[in-house]
Amino acid sequence: MNSLPDTIEKLIEGFSRFPGIGRKTAQRMTFNLLKSSSEEASSLAKSIMDMKSKIRFCNICHGITEQDPCLICKDIKRDSTLICVVEDPADIYTFEKSSIFNGYYHVLGGLLSPLDGIGPEDINISTLINRVKIGDEVIIATNPSIEGETTSLYIAKLLADKSINVTRLARGIPMGANLEYIDDATIQRAIEGRTAL
Amino acid sequence: MNSLPDTIEKLIEGFSRFPGIGRKTAQRMTFNLLKSSSEEASSLAKSIMDMKSKIRFCNICHGITEQDPCLICKDIKRDSTLICVVEDPADIYTFEKSSIFNGYYHVLGGLLSPLDGIGPEDINISTLINRVKIGDEVIIATNPSIEGETTSLYIAKLLADKSINVTRLARGIPMGANLEYIDDATIQRAIEGRTAL
Repeated sequence: MNSLPDTIEKLIEGFSRFPGIGRKTAQRMTFNLLKSSSEEASSLAKSIMDMKSKIRFCNICHGITEQDPCLICKDIKRDSTLICVVEDPADIYTFEKSSIFNGYYHVLGGLLSPLDGIGPEDINISTLINRVKIGDEVIIATNPSIEGETTSLYIAKLLADKSINVTRLARGIPMGANLEYIDDATIQRAIEGRTAL
Repeated sequence: MNSLPDTIEKLIEGFSRFPGIGRKTAQRMTFNLLKSSSEEASSLAKSIMDMKSKIRFCNICHGITEQDPCLICKDIKRDSTLICVVEDPADIYTFEKSSIFNGYYHVLGGLLSPLDGIGPEDINISTLINRVKIGDEVIIATNPSIEGETTSLYIAKLLADKSINVTRLARGIPMGANLEYIDDATIQRAIEGRTAL
């Protein structure tokens, strides 16, 4: 049996290191790149290097940016009393895409997870505490997982005695969903959080 | 609304150009790469460049290789009367993995498709005709699509008057399948090609 050339094998391994990319997809990507022009391949390689060299973390919100502070933190037209706390830099763009939120962000860079040894000092909580001012509203927008809940409760407790309004995203039925397929936990949250019509 | 930094956006675009990789997966890959070490990212970029610069097509079988002729064409222990004709270089490794086939390969680099303007001169058919010797067996292993069938019939016709044995892979029920879910066309081929027990 003859195996794939080393350079091909190495690239397949490189691609299959991404989450959600299995060996077969990585192989398909590699052979696709092999067929594409040299310019396309080197432009992809360049994009990877560029991203690593140019992207840094904003010192205020810990989001990703090419200049520090980031464009969002520099934008003085935003509502400075609103801070939305998210887990990942990518989460910022979910809010920005919707154009609904007009405050600032704070990226935790992870969630509290005692089982994995991730404590408050491992994520960006202290910088959040230092950032908030009396009268601010902190909207906690972590994912609705156990770690997300733990983290949001921990932050709420830290901010409780600081005259800061801590809120979190509403839980309920997502738009466009079919009630038939909604899980029990979501139904429970939707009933508990029902609003007057 | 603030969009993603340019370098990030460019890499997402680069990844989403691959078949089967949508915008969401490309975004997940990019943010994953952002979190990984600089060494990992530059090793991926290097693998891409290495592949493009080192991989060439074998002049005999048109498979991919780092040296020409490729290791398979150079292997004198193989059965020189057997040539397996495949569409893509990647197909070679499907056969090599199984360790069942001990002949040589010939990569067409495409399939005849008059509707897309792909004729016999656009794929590696003439080099196949020049390669075969009287008494050889040519096993056609194109995919069972319309283009695959057209191409295999065309090659069979070209080789018909050359005292060359042209065969193709058996069609039938794949191992491990459940008859309940097999399509009509496969059932038809399985009945037509039934063998004595």
